[in-house]
Amino acid sequence: MSKPSLVKGTRDFGPSVMVKRNFIFYTIKHTFQKFGFQPLETPTLETLNVLMGKYGDEGDQLLFKVLNSGDFLKEVTPEDFDEGAKKLTHKISEKGLRYDLTVPFARYVVMNRNELAIPFKRYQIQPVWRADRPQRGRYREFYQCDADVVGTDSLICEAEIVLMLHEIFQNLGITEFTVKINNRKILSGIAETIGMKGSEVPLTVAIDKLDKIGKEKVEDELRERGFSAEVIAQLQPIFNLQGDTAEVLSGLKAWLKNSETGLKGVEEIEKVWNLIDAFGLQSPKIQLDITLARGLSYYTGAIFEVKANNVQMGSISGGGRYDNLTGTFGLPGLSGVGISLGVDRIYDVMEELGLFADNQGVTTQVLLTNFDAEAETYSLPLLKKLRDAGINAEIYPDHAKLRKQFEYADRKKIPYVCVVGSEEMATGELTLKNMQSGEQTRLTIESIIQNLK
Amino acid sequence: MSKPSLVKGTRDFGPSVMVKRNFIFYTIKHTFQKFGFQPLETPTLETLNVLMGKYGDEGDQLLFKVLNSGDFLKEVTPEDFDEGAKKLTHKISEKGLRYDLTVPFARYVVMNRNELAIPFKRYQIQPVWRADRPQRGRYREFYQCDADVVGTDSLICEAEIVLMLHEIFQNLGITEFTVKINNRKILSGIAETIGMKGSEVPLTVAIDKLDKIGKEKVEDELRERGFSAEVIAQLQPIFNLQGDTAEVLSGLKAWLKNSETGLKGVEEIEKVWNLIDAFGLQSPKIQLDITLARGLSYYTGAIFEVKANNVQMGSISGGGRYDNLTGTFGLPGLSGVGISLGVDRIYDVMEELGLFADNQGVTTQVLLTNFDAEAETYSLPLLKKLRDAGINAEIYPDHAKLRKQFEYADRKKIPYVCVVGSEEMATGELTLKNMQSGEQTRLTIESIIQNLK
Repeated sequence: MSKPSLVKGTRDFGPSVMVKRNFIFYTIKHTFQKFGFQPLETPTLETLNVLMGKYGDEGDQLLFKVLNSGDFLKEVTPEDFDEGAKKLTHKISEKGLRYDLTVPFARYVVMNRNELAIPFKRYQIQPVWRADRPQRGRYREFYQCDADVVGTDSLICEAEIVLMLHEIFQNLGITEFTVKINNRKILSGIAETIGMKGSEVPLTVAIDKLDKIGKEKVEDELRERGFSAEVIAQLQPIFNLQGDTAEVLSGLKAWLKNSETGLKGVEEIEKVWNLIDAFGLQSPKIQLDITLARGLSYYTGAIFEVKANNVQMGSISGGGRYDNLTGTFGLPGLSGVGISLGVDRIYDVMEELGLFADNQGVTTQVLLTNFDAEAETYSLPLLKKLRDAGINAEIYPDHAKLRKQFEYADRKKIPYVCVVGSEEMATGELTLKNMQSGEQTRLTIESIIQNLK
Repeated sequence: MSKPSLVKGTRDFGPSVMVKRNFIFYTIKHTFQKFGFQPLETPTLETLNVLMGKYGDEGDQLLFKVLNSGDFLKEVTPEDFDEGAKKLTHKISEKGLRYDLTVPFARYVVMNRNELAIPFKRYQIQPVWRADRPQRGRYREFYQCDADVVGTDSLICEAEIVLMLHEIFQNLGITEFTVKINNRKILSGIAETIGMKGSEVPLTVAIDKLDKIGKEKVEDELRERGFSAEVIAQLQPIFNLQGDTAEVLSGLKAWLKNSETGLKGVEEIEKVWNLIDAFGLQSPKIQLDITLARGLSYYTGAIFEVKANNVQMGSISGGGRYDNLTGTFGLPGLSGVGISLGVDRIYDVMEELGLFADNQGVTTQVLLTNFDAEAETYSLPLLKKLRDAGINAEIYPDHAKLRKQFEYADRKKIPYVCVVGSEEMATGELTLKNMQSGEQTRLTIESIIQNLK
């Protein structure tokens, strides 16, 4: 008789949480579809051939690996065993759990390239697994929500991602947010201009902190990372870029004049800004942030990140353009751009800002009471009428004291209880109790249906 | 550069299949909620403590087990290795993939018993995994859709399951189906009456085939299974039960007169029939089938099974009442009743009967063409207008030949293409092409929105 427990880093989602999460999922899906993205689902299990080597050494270690079925030791020798866990893994496991949605997406595209409508716009909302050390806000099983377009370099896709993000967050009620945008080519151009081509990573890791720690400390960090005083001096114009987007871009253009890549980055940013304007998006919440750096090893163009304002919380969405989704599977040259939404963080932001409506947790609208066999028989056709009218309704299944039935409604957050007693049956006027206000009214079933619809 | 493949027995669900599956999921969820069931999601990973020993030896073998993270051999000795795969498993794996939705549900109930509204009505729609040998129609990863009520013995729950099944299948367009109902206690009563108490399993395995192989062959099989000629002779009235439900029940009642359990089963069936009648369900598609046997090791009351008529296909739904959901986790006496729907089979039935509407696969309603920068800039605000009106719309992201853009719309089953050329821009009257009929009309964007809504 074991006392059951959850696997560390995993969660149950009970009814009230599920209903709120479903609202988030629904809003995201609905918007993705409005923009022409179509749903895809891939299996939880992928071959280790597909998964390994895609996420770096650390990623390989964080993959959950599934033991082969049956006698998995059949072809294992004591020598294999002596070689240690890492080598033995490949002998006893050939499958793993999906680590993200991008690699399965790439696999799907390669395996179905002849049937797909290219450009292929897909969204995918599924859990992923990582054998990370669990901690506050970091789980071993969590959902990703991705939308990607592959097979086109058109910057319309970047602009549409910005529009989609606006629509999703506004529909969720998160009205205060910032879509930060940068371009990988600008980061390359900056490195190139200061004569440190290829050093984008240490450079951006440092200047990314400009807002948080200030210019002096960023310079200290750059020095520690081996940037010379001369190089750091050259960076001053970047630290001092000021003004609106047009001014910053014009300053950048002058400063990057000898970097073809850098100028291309500025041009792409300008184009995206113009496209957003052409769409007619009202008061876009976008911000050019030339210190924004993420996915430096795979993003090649636009980089996106969304922060909720007035909340202490990491980014709630991120994405960018890449130019080689499927090369690792033997299909080179397929570029695309995508965005990923963090459902757990979005949920936390909405809870913190009180954005879930009071009735967001409601699944049943009305409970019919059940005192005895007579009332029960009287109530069943009424219950059917309520449901036929599209109202979520239930009857308390047992004959029980009224208090117990009210408690049930309270726990389940059912907003109305319809009391069916002898007087109600005699008159056909049922007692409808509003569980929040306590108010009771006598109504026919038809009036109740009208009120609840 | 590996050529990627799927894990055997798993599937990708591409856009057109996903849209149809989502229709099925939506219909099921919507109905579950209408009947007061609330959503639950549990993790994919469960501890082997929770999973093992719940599904019999065969089930234990069919569990996918996950290798412990890090150096899983740390505490494994060469002696452990010599003991073979079965014993070694427990040293190197402590987690597995969910095998069904019932055991995680039981675990959830036990861990959250103090917070739940009892009776607890939950539905759960998630994939499960079984390391079965894959074959046509049998997958290693597949969805289950379960709804259960626990914490009440009320037969209203059985009647409501029947109503739910009617609503789900009718809403899916599967109008010809049969809900077969039996009661485990009747099967016990039959065994008891012929003096073979406890032999329900071999008995029902044989008589379950009455429809398919006829009385004589069933008797042969019973003989092979060790039933004496005398016992088989006693069974004759069961083979010969005829007439409508009331007549069969009355015949059963007379024949089972010495089995308290059997009579209780008949009484429960009668009560369920009466409740369905009291609800006022129009022409219920229910059938008492006293040979129906499933889940004999855990069902204790009602047994359900649904077959689609006029289709060669196994059952599309099954369920029943059990009286000890959580005993194995140390919480005895929690009874309930549940139903499970087979989404893969429902999908196949709907495909075979042509029940998916032509537009079921449509996610984007209209594609705007894109010939050049001028048309593109002209089109973007129109695209936004369409979307703001709630219409799923997209623009072809690149400047391309018309044929290519039409091909894209065809592949993606987009029903309308809106051509934006120089004449259209001059007049504001766009060319809307119906991709199925080929018909073209000239309309303003406002008229197009009106037409498509």
